[in-house]
Amino acid sequence: MSSPAENAVAIAQDLIRCPSVTPADAGALDALDRPLAAAGFTCDRLTFGEDGTADVDNLVAHIGSGAPHLCFAGHTDVVPPGDESLWRHAPFSAAIADGRLFGRGASDMKGAVACFAAAAIDYVAERGGQLPGTISLLITGDEEGTAVNGTKKVLAWMEEAKLVPDHCLVGEPSNPAVLGEMIKIGRRGSLTGHLTVTGQQGHVAYPHLAANPVKGIVTALAKLYGTPLDSGSTHFSPSNLEVTSIDVGNPATNVIPARAEARFNIRFNDNHEAEALKAMLRGSIGAALADSELTFALDFAPHGDVFVTTPGALDELLSEAVTEFTGKTPVLSTGGGTSDARFIKDYCPVVEFGLTTETIHKTDENAALADLETLTAIYRRFIARYFETFGDGASEDNNGR
Amino acid sequence: MSSPAENAVAIAQDLIRCPSVTPADAGALDALDRPLAAAGFTCDRLTFGEDGTADVDNLVAHIGSGAPHLCFAGHTDVVPPGDESLWRHAPFSAAIADGRLFGRGASDMKGAVACFAAAAIDYVAERGGQLPGTISLLITGDEEGTAVNGTKKVLAWMEEAKLVPDHCLVGEPSNPAVLGEMIKIGRRGSLTGHLTVTGQQGHVAYPHLAANPVKGIVTALAKLYGTPLDSGSTHFSPSNLEVTSIDVGNPATNVIPARAEARFNIRFNDNHEAEALKAMLRGSIGAALADSELTFALDFAPHGDVFVTTPGALDELLSEAVTEFTGKTPVLSTGGGTSDARFIKDYCPVVEFGLTTETIHKTDENAALADLETLTAIYRRFIARYFETFGDGASEDNNGR
Repeated sequence: MSSPAENAVAIAQDLIRCPSVTPADAGALDALDRPLAAAGFTCDRLTFGEDGTADVDNLVAHIGSGAPHLCFAGHTDVVPPGDESLWRHAPFSAAIADGRLFGRGASDMKGAVACFAAAAIDYVAERGGQLPGTISLLITGDEEGTAVNGTKKVLAWMEEAKLVPDHCLVGEPSNPAVLGEMIKIGRRGSLTGHLTVTGQQGHVAYPHLAANPVKGIVTALAKLYGTPLDSGSTHFSPSNLEVTSIDVGNPATNVIPARAEARFNIRFNDNHEAEALKAMLRGSIGAALADSELTFALDFAPHGDVFVTTPGALDELLSEAVTEFTGKTPVLSTGGGTSDARFIKDYCPVVEFGLTTETIHKTDENAALADLETLTAIYRRFIARYFETFGDGASEDNNGR
Repeated sequence: MSSPAENAVAIAQDLIRCPSVTPADAGALDALDRPLAAAGFTCDRLTFGEDGTADVDNLVAHIGSGAPHLCFAGHTDVVPPGDESLWRHAPFSAAIADGRLFGRGASDMKGAVACFAAAAIDYVAERGGQLPGTISLLITGDEEGTAVNGTKKVLAWMEEAKLVPDHCLVGEPSNPAVLGEMIKIGRRGSLTGHLTVTGQQGHVAYPHLAANPVKGIVTALAKLYGTPLDSGSTHFSPSNLEVTSIDVGNPATNVIPARAEARFNIRFNDNHEAEALKAMLRGSIGAALADSELTFALDFAPHGDVFVTTPGALDELLSEAVTEFTGKTPVLSTGGGTSDARFIKDYCPVVEFGLTTETIHKTDENAALADLETLTAIYRRFIARYFETFGDGASEDNNGR
């Protein structure tokens, strides 16, 4: 019988061989479903869709019943490989070379999905199928896409099925360079805005007969840049504004244009709440343009809320397992980009720990075989310690539930 | 025999009936050449061209010889009429209605060309063809276009032909609303710049791994806006910067772009010289970006120099004639857009006086018949007073030559 680590690599290879570029499944969920079902898991396949989006396949696999319920969450969809001819090994070949597993999704995050599946299978086998609670796997095919038909809808289905987990570990790549460096316990909120400043077109030689919206947008954005949002908080770095585009599209060098547009994104910490932040931005831009004849419109895309899982038993158990197998004490971070943890945090405490981010979304994405082995061992130890800590009489929950 | 005013209207109608949208001549120079040649003028037709531009027809008509040499300058090309169905009277029909002459070019500037041609013909006729100097007409077909094959090359030809004028009156529409309000004695310089700021692309969630050129371009432009160029001078309003476009073209709201571009135009007065202004801009932008990891490139289109014809006898004679027929004391202005006076000022003192700007470049462009009559009388008086003042022993020149 193969070791959990061997099993993890085999599952990861099976997953990588499916070109599951969002929203395609390409057999990926089958590749995961098979070993889990063989180990006794109940596998529910969930296809979700809505107008204007492609249907997406998702999977909930669970075993055992009742509390405590530990959920591993992840995705089997991947970003496109780009020009495949630039890859050393074909992106869906799952080649092993130089001690590494190559392929799109190796680190983000078919590798980690395979590791926690193998760890869970091993734990279940050791217990002879008798669990002191529930283990589930929440696997979506819509994380790299719009995330409309994935985790959010799967969680609603789990609530309906009375399968809401008590705690969740998301296996997203969390380590900037070396396995064991970082556990993510939350995320900054994300607010994307679209500012349109409208003035009066005219000739550059007669500026008094025009109102230049470019000056207005520069003045407004300079004011936003000049007003730091905060200086950080206990678990968060300072909130940050990035203007991602300004566009006027005026080809005539002697014409003052009628309109200028800017797009920006703010990653905000727990000093802010999205609606108050919007009001502050509106007030600040209004003040910057008050002395002009310009008008403005400020629209926002649906925002992502800030969240943090207050450090407690969940991250401590995970940290102990990480330290045991890597010798490192992981930093508890709320930095970086978004993940489906933003949906899960509405249901239960959630932490994130997976492989490294070094090669994700890049040509020659890969994961070290040693890291896959270590990560499987960490997950395996974490499962055991989880049920020792939260199972039976040990029901005290330091993570807010 | 028709009066000079009747002659002016007839010539203006002949000119308007030629659809001489730059670079087409469409018979316009013939329509002017005919009455001038009949009055004894020597007419030289000059066709200029160069690679990448269309050939353009121009005309130099002159009569008499030696100093003083008064030149009337203008253009017979016009801007396109746009949607002709929107015109009350077809744009090339030269319809007369409600005391007005309608048509593309009526004010800008076939009307004024006809007025100074009629005034010069009348003066020549009264003198029996014997002039106390020279009168010339410098007429181009490339003023509303790139101005590459027009006045600039005609002046070089005139220099070669020993026909450089001593003074010049450009008949461009100079009055904002009412005939007699304004004489133009110079123009601000014009400098068009193209700023490119280059940074490092990245994810908005990881700004420390990127360098956002949008922040750089906003910071640099805010610095330029915040540093007034000057507060004006004797003959000029303050220099003015207009940013005409900022373009990034980044469609991804979660990506920090690698590059941002801006285009701007500065109308500068005689406190500045173009090269020093360029150096100042370069220094200012460099200082604004000094603390960043951004680089920038700053390119300039060929600039227009600032110039002013120091007030003196030329504008005084013109003002007297204006006041005599309009009752107004014209303001001496250096405002507004560019004209071919920018080329002529390198050869002799130049002033500008013509019709009003109210309908130029618009649908239903027109000129009041009363204005055509008054302008012809002003030009006619100006010619007579010019030769009284600068002819014979009266050779003192208060305009710098």
